[in-house]
Amino acid sequence: MSRIAVVGGTGHLGAAIAKRLAKAGHHIVIGSRAAESAQKAAAEIGHGATGGANADIAAGADFVIVTVPYGAQAATLSEIKDRVGSAIVVDATVPLKPPKVMRVQLPQAGSAALEAQAILGEGVRLVSAFHSVAAHKLATDEKVDCDVLVFSDDIEARKAVMELVSQMDLRPVAGGALANAAAAEALTSILIFLNKTYSADGAGIRFTGLTTAPPIP
Amino acid sequence: MSRIAVVGGTGHLGAAIAKRLAKAGHHIVIGSRAAESAQKAAAEIGHGATGGANADIAAGADFVIVTVPYGAQAATLSEIKDRVGSAIVVDATVPLKPPKVMRVQLPQAGSAALEAQAILGEGVRLVSAFHSVAAHKLATDEKVDCDVLVFSDDIEARKAVMELVSQMDLRPVAGGALANAAAAEALTSILIFLNKTYSADGAGIRFTGLTTAPPIP
Repeated sequence: MSRIAVVGGTGHLGAAIAKRLAKAGHHIVIGSRAAESAQKAAAEIGHGATGGANADIAAGADFVIVTVPYGAQAATLSEIKDRVGSAIVVDATVPLKPPKVMRVQLPQAGSAALEAQAILGEGVRLVSAFHSVAAHKLATDEKVDCDVLVFSDDIEARKAVMELVSQMDLRPVAGGALANAAAAEALTSILIFLNKTYSADGAGIRFTGLTTAPPIP
Repeated sequence: MSRIAVVGGTGHLGAAIAKRLAKAGHHIVIGSRAAESAQKAAAEIGHGATGGANADIAAGADFVIVTVPYGAQAATLSEIKDRVGSAIVVDATVPLKPPKVMRVQLPQAGSAALEAQAILGEGVRLVSAFHSVAAHKLATDEKVDCDVLVFSDDIEARKAVMELVSQMDLRPVAGGALANAAAAEALTSILIFLNKTYSADGAGIRFTGLTTAPPIP
């Protein structure tokens, strides 16, 4: 059992991730800008989940999962960077720039993941994941027909996050270096486009040609 | 039946695309830097395919499909730009930078597709496609378990290319604006990484949650 802080855990994606990880037996701490909202969300999740302000929950966690809108990413990471210690930070930020969310607009640094690394510094164990999975599907108890790409320059950290993804009843797929998160970030705009164009209720992606149960490399 | 020029058609991807389109009944003209190599490749394809130098075959085509390595893209497009006229140009370039081909390294402009547009100019009908499909699988007569994303700012041109993709016994998926090609270009490095990491023989992608036979939007 790990202690997992979900920063921005009152949002759709964060709450859905928290719910699946709580069911898997982990101790979840929900974070929000306002501690009260976080505590309310934690109560809804149950399974012993607790809540607090984003800045306060990062300390002492094994994993810190960051699920905030792109516009809040830099401020949120700056707020938690001195508190995460040796925790593995999982950034799920997708650089969507409203109103053109169906258009790929990667940041100058190449990806939101690389921007996160620049803010957190080399000392923080950073992983990028959960870009492409539809929050409203993740919020259910059903199987989700979508692979979860996991990127990191820290192979042990990547493995640990892939193990968490498996526990959430999702298939993790190693995507390589942190810089490769650009692919998953860009794909999210394509999936939003597909939802509109093909009237899909949460389009997703699957990789083909892998073994059915790929090893966690 | 369309007249389809395949620039760089002696390469693995170009030859495989040409073969499927020739079987579908189109008149294929294979291009290479050397006319002789192109004529030899055309003879292997059969179905009335002919060959010539890259610069010579673009004129008079309905479609000009460009399948060259990233390092040759700019020179090749510059060579053909004044000859393509009203043809639909389909660029399949993936910005791989050897030796780090498993690392996403998108160009400063955002994508090879946008670089192509800058070279060809706004007057050329440009589509980006065929990034993710494994050439050695495309070269067979088998079904390929991989969707083909098709991007363009010219919706009629996108539709026309999606129709060609269907005729090749592949599923086309509209990916939106030309700028969105960044997603498919980046994904190709991920697929190369997966081939190595999961010992896959040509990993691919499938989109989920769409209808089985998506309309061509």
